Amino acid sequence: MDCIFCKIVEGSIPSTKVFENDRIVAFNDIQPAAPVHVLIIPKKHIPTMNDVTEEDDALMAEIFAAGRQIAKELGVDESGYRLVNNCNPDSGQLVYHLHIHLLGGKPLGPLIG
Amino acid sequence: MDCIFCKIVEGSIPSTKVFENDRIVAFNDIQPAAPVHVLIIPKKHIPTMNDVTEEDDALMAEIFAAGRQIAKELGVDESGYRLVNNCNPDSGQLVYHLHIHLLGGKPLGPLIG
Repeated sequence: MDCIFCKIVEGSIPSTKVFENDRIVAFNDIQPAAPVHVLIIPKKHIPTMNDVTEEDDALMAEIFAAGRQIAKELGVDESGYRLVNNCNPDSGQLVYHLHIHLLGGKPLGPLIG
Repeated sequence: MDCIFCKIVEGSIPSTKVFENDRIVAFNDIQPAAPVHVLIIPKKHIPTMNDVTEEDDALMAEIFAAGRQIAKELGVDESGYRLVNNCNPDSGQLVYHLHIHLLGGKPLGPLIG
């Protein structure tokens, strides 16, 4: 599987991890758009939000629980943060392994560019 | 409760609903930032993502399942869409009742303004 995020999961591509359990890993975006810019991903390869199924319900809830925990640990829970999932071309999705951006650390401006 | 989204849930403020079940409602944003701009909310009043608890895990999964379904119904699932949750001031959260923005229908540009 030629997926850069699967390689991050397995460790063959290095990353700065801020959270990890058996099902999820979160790491700093290498091209941060804000002072805090973390990507939260399932270890399981799911290409896009469209490919999530009911089988993944617990995983989805856990991803957002991880987001809340990471926001707190990185000190942006009260100042504010944005969680973003991009799905397919119009959104600007670049890597086709489901990921949730967690952005914070400054005023983030509009929802879209 | 002086919450505009609770009033939309109960129907005392009108909205153009695109999805509804016992736990969730989704309606068009009155100030759309893109051709498709829907807000998906739990009927239960949860102020922010920080206030979501394990008790809400099934609800969170269901919100994203609704997002996938709405994206498909509105014809943006393949062209692309963005799901956004803003939490607290730096994000620009305006209404303190948890909501997920679903944006699509054109190229959406950067993650932050």
